[in-house]
Amino acid sequence: MRLGPILRSFPHIRPRSYPLVHRRHSSDMASVVNKTAHPFDKARFDATLNRRFFYAPAFEIYGGVAGLYDYGPPGSALQANIIDQWRKHFIIEEGMLELDTTIMTPSAVFETSGHVARFADWMVKDTKTGDVLRADHLVKNVLENRLAGDREARGLAAAPPVEDKKRKKKAGKATTLKLDDEVVKEYETILAQLDNYTGPELGELCRKHKLTNPDTDNEVGEPQQFNLMFQSSIGPTGQHKGYLRPETAQGHFLNFNRLLDYNNGRVPFASAQIGRSFRNEISPRAGLLRVREFTMAEIEHYVDPDDKSHPRFKEVRDIAIVLLDRDVQEAGSSETRVMSVGEAVDKGIIANETLGYFIVRIYLFLVNIGINPKRLRFRQHMANEMAHYATDCWDAEIHNATGWTECVGCADRAAYDLSVHSAKTGQPLVVRQALKEPIVTEKETPEWNKKNLGKLFKKDAAVITQLVEALDEPSLLKLKGELAQGSTVVKSEDGKEFALTPEVVTIERKVFKQSIREFTPNVIEPSFGLGRILYTLLEHSFWSRESDVERGVLSLPPVVAPTKVLIVPLSAREEFNPLVQEISAKLRKAGVFSRVDDSNTSIGKRYARNDELGTPFGLTIDFASIPNRTVTLRERDTTDQRIGSIDEVIATVTELVDGTIDWEEACQRLPAYDGVQAVAE
Amino acid sequence: MRLGPILRSFPHIRPRSYPLVHRRHSSDMASVVNKTAHPFDKARFDATLNRRFFYAPAFEIYGGVAGLYDYGPPGSALQANIIDQWRKHFIIEEGMLELDTTIMTPSAVFETSGHVARFADWMVKDTKTGDVLRADHLVKNVLENRLAGDREARGLAAAPPVEDKKRKKKAGKATTLKLDDEVVKEYETILAQLDNYTGPELGELCRKHKLTNPDTDNEVGEPQQFNLMFQSSIGPTGQHKGYLRPETAQGHFLNFNRLLDYNNGRVPFASAQIGRSFRNEISPRAGLLRVREFTMAEIEHYVDPDDKSHPRFKEVRDIAIVLLDRDVQEAGSSETRVMSVGEAVDKGIIANETLGYFIVRIYLFLVNIGINPKRLRFRQHMANEMAHYATDCWDAEIHNATGWTECVGCADRAAYDLSVHSAKTGQPLVVRQALKEPIVTEKETPEWNKKNLGKLFKKDAAVITQLVEALDEPSLLKLKGELAQGSTVVKSEDGKEFALTPEVVTIERKVFKQSIREFTPNVIEPSFGLGRILYTLLEHSFWSRESDVERGVLSLPPVVAPTKVLIVPLSAREEFNPLVQEISAKLRKAGVFSRVDDSNTSIGKRYARNDELGTPFGLTIDFASIPNRTVTLRERDTTDQRIGSIDEVIATVTELVDGTIDWEEACQRLPAYDGVQAVAE
Repeated sequence: MRLGPILRSFPHIRPRSYPLVHRRHSSDMASVVNKTAHPFDKARFDATLNRRFFYAPAFEIYGGVAGLYDYGPPGSALQANIIDQWRKHFIIEEGMLELDTTIMTPSAVFETSGHVARFADWMVKDTKTGDVLRADHLVKNVLENRLAGDREARGLAAAPPVEDKKRKKKAGKATTLKLDDEVVKEYETILAQLDNYTGPELGELCRKHKLTNPDTDNEVGEPQQFNLMFQSSIGPTGQHKGYLRPETAQGHFLNFNRLLDYNNGRVPFASAQIGRSFRNEISPRAGLLRVREFTMAEIEHYVDPDDKSHPRFKEVRDIAIVLLDRDVQEAGSSETRVMSVGEAVDKGIIANETLGYFIVRIYLFLVNIGINPKRLRFRQHMANEMAHYATDCWDAEIHNATGWTECVGCADRAAYDLSVHSAKTGQPLVVRQALKEPIVTEKETPEWNKKNLGKLFKKDAAVITQLVEALDEPSLLKLKGELAQGSTVVKSEDGKEFALTPEVVTIERKVFKQSIREFTPNVIEPSFGLGRILYTLLEHSFWSRESDVERGVLSLPPVVAPTKVLIVPLSAREEFNPLVQEISAKLRKAGVFSRVDDSNTSIGKRYARNDELGTPFGLTIDFASIPNRTVTLRERDTTDQRIGSIDEVIATVTELVDGTIDWEEACQRLPAYDGVQAVAE
Repeated sequence: MRLGPILRSFPHIRPRSYPLVHRRHSSDMASVVNKTAHPFDKARFDATLNRRFFYAPAFEIYGGVAGLYDYGPPGSALQANIIDQWRKHFIIEEGMLELDTTIMTPSAVFETSGHVARFADWMVKDTKTGDVLRADHLVKNVLENRLAGDREARGLAAAPPVEDKKRKKKAGKATTLKLDDEVVKEYETILAQLDNYTGPELGELCRKHKLTNPDTDNEVGEPQQFNLMFQSSIGPTGQHKGYLRPETAQGHFLNFNRLLDYNNGRVPFASAQIGRSFRNEISPRAGLLRVREFTMAEIEHYVDPDDKSHPRFKEVRDIAIVLLDRDVQEAGSSETRVMSVGEAVDKGIIANETLGYFIVRIYLFLVNIGINPKRLRFRQHMANEMAHYATDCWDAEIHNATGWTECVGCADRAAYDLSVHSAKTGQPLVVRQALKEPIVTEKETPEWNKKNLGKLFKKDAAVITQLVEALDEPSLLKLKGELAQGSTVVKSEDGKEFALTPEVVTIERKVFKQSIREFTPNVIEPSFGLGRILYTLLEHSFWSRESDVERGVLSLPPVVAPTKVLIVPLSAREEFNPLVQEISAKLRKAGVFSRVDDSNTSIGKRYARNDELGTPFGLTIDFASIPNRTVTLRERDTTDQRIGSIDEVIATVTELVDGTIDWEEACQRLPAYDGVQAVAE
């Protein structure tokens, strides 16, 4: 991981981001502590997020609905901060044109885009209970369990990761059973290219390997397609079919002409949109990782198909990323390699510079908000997995307790989207570019004497014109020669012959000048699933102190932490109020979001509660604060405490939150707190 | 309008808002100029917004869908800035708990809330064409047209405002016809209380006044209810009916227990949410004012039903607002009165302090982002208009080309929402409050000897216990006296008699102490339609210079303006690039959003284009800038130009955007630009 050059190339990142040295410190710490609490305790993690209301099942008091979640105050704030960073990193930095288009979409749009016909998953039905399962998930779960059972039988490992309670109960426990070596190899090959199978092929796998519903052990039927779009109807008559968009992209494409005009007719440019999308998942079971309603952020970058270079590529070309390319997967392996994006583009592994540029920008964004770069890879789509029109496609996959999860897609979709909408609506969706050097061509050109033509040939005139205009250069030259001799004969498809003379037509060499080039731009589409990013970020940030394994700490970078500073008066006594109000007001003025916790419990407990919420800094007001106008500053990850005057501490914490200094630098400014131990950890 | 005290009461507003004196200046100017261009030219205004892509009909290249709009770059940015201000003004200032809940909602929730049964509008069908119209809109349009025709006949006024092209063509032109004075009075009375009619009453009005479809002149049928929720189904089996939420409120109520817990069990507190909602409007025709998909911001403030005072009410009580109360409307008038909110609460016109507090906070928010206070009023709901459970309800109505439009609602919904969900789900949604002083009561209490009771009465024991426990205090005292005498007789409902003795039961006086009070909080709900606010704000900001009537100017306050600063190099020549980049970077660092316009057109044209986009400041880089390091600063509303060093101008423009200084103050710092007139206006 070459992180140095990133910061030099993108100096704008630095002032707003958590200083890299500090963030590395935190994630190193998290991984160390995760090791002490190994394996990662997903149950405790989930319970913490639920208890602190990061998110919770929607409609919980009505029994909930699978795949629908509500974000509570810390989850909403974390999401808003991630969006804010996204907006700065992409929209503002690259001058993108932001859009906000509607979710409800008339059927015709998705008929054109191909979603009505093809935006579907393969589902299988349990032949006895009628339960519905996603076919590829069934194959994955059963084969992974069998492999885990095999590893156990060979004395190599414990049970596999389980995704939820139901599986845990019924299917998660692998049966210890040794498999033949060839079977192991076959299963591994299937899993490595699982996304590459068609529906009928998945059905074939179920039959061949006797894959049954893990919940019931019943056989399953043939895979059937299930369209993932939610359907509704628009207007009072019920005649206008509509769908909830499964992505925001179509809203960009349909506004292409307006966007191009807004950009003064020039490409390349990009549109960007953050908004809600909907997918009626067959059987969502993986918490925030597979939901029916989610917030996306999508970019459509429109580029000249003949020139996919990127002016800023040189700034990123040395940055190394972890790649899992198509060839490796199709060979049945999951082995990644680390490579600079420059090398990957030079070798043709990544299709072009613009795609490579965005892959790096995605990488930087994710690492900047706190994703552990060691648990981030870019996986290329395999042949069957990729849409037929796409040139290349890479997913940013983030590792978490359930394995590797696609969190961002980055595809070169060629001219597909604009072409299909243009063909359907008859509206040109093209760029017209004035050529710097007009293209000058000379060619033989028929010149008609319309009057004589009409008089001589009457209703056959059109046929004759068409015949001659369709001729290629050599044939026209031949015709020219014959006409110079006096006359020639052309023959229609149905064998009719027409004698032509120079009175009707002559062939002349003419010069043509083309000064406008017209083309349909290609689209590079980075598409972010914000809920998945939020969830994996929480996992990467979660650990427990050895001194208090029961309680978690969320080491979120300040730039995304829901609350930046917790103000903790020793007690709710009135004498602390003036200082609490002064400090709150000063932090608000400095643009630092703080909260006061004056609840009736020990300072240590209040800090522990806020460690779970990811609050990076705490200011304690005690009895000494009143006469001395001093406060202590506590850092979440180290639990270090420093002391200083109110204004000094506020200035320091503001810089810490803005990322212009790190904790080490803060410690050089403020002495360690060695007074009476008012804060019991 | 007493604006002075506002700023003293809410000092936080000042630093981030446009200085009041400047904003007043702008809106005064706008109204002056609107007068010169009187009447307001809606067609030019709409054309400008469309051309600059503030918003446009969604799916335009597919022919569009009524009531669905996409926001382009300036519209998205304006919306994002309004949301940002809303978040600061409400969520941060009042420490509200933000939520982000799902749009897709299972049917059961809206069955409980009453939306499935009652969230409907009355529609009528054209008896010949089958066209569907909203019944109240039909009444309004036809009566307003007749009144306009009458005014014309009396020589009093021109044609009425028209809402769209279709109406303009067919129905917008009022027939000049004088009406009887009583008829005029009757029509005016109907219009003043239009929102108070039931469906059958609207039908009656159509028959009585012979109201026909203005597009066809055909009669219409009886009003029928049409539910405004979009319906869908969740999951692959199609068995789970769902609706798209028509408001965000239910997501708050269902999470009440989690929110209360997050707030350490204390009330009052508020939850807040910004998100998309959907209403399948019958016949949306009024642009952004009536749409099928829209962004809302809603607050649910939970308060003790016995104490609706507000701790900060004293800060706002002297602020005067324009009120149109219930009694006035029910008397058939639309006359408003200006009153301080303190007086309105004291007189019982506004039901309580908390409701009054939010009404003022709404007022301040709207004026702060640029709504003209002279075109803002608070209208109280009439008896039939208000939900049966609500205590009081006020709409913030903003005046615009179509009349007065509800943009914010503010209702005291009592305990309705929490009560119905609690009753349906069996989950208590209550606050448990430790009483400071426990409530001590003494009462006569039966004490049973269970052993003897069972032995003597066997299966009748339960009946006897029930009979005695149900007695009131005097009866228990009588029983006590009889038992003291040796025995008594109790009689069951079916006439059976039981003789009781002190061996079975005695009556004793006991002391009870209640230390917990349990109650369902009441809900005060301010609910904002952001699209309507955005649209009316654009109308209030739009005017034209006398020197260039064809082009508009949008005098948006910098705090919400899509772009704050336009950087204008004299030309796209490379020599200007270093300065352009330096200034862009410095503004970005200062947190000021700028754009560069180096397109190949005159500076005057570029400024005019950005006046239409509402960009408040422009920095011009000319040939003098290179040797002197000076730039000129141009203010949008006055077109004043000042000059200064790059750093001076950047510091000044940053303060202007932050609202810490106004243009007058800026002019004291920077001298007027009197050099060569590089900028042709």
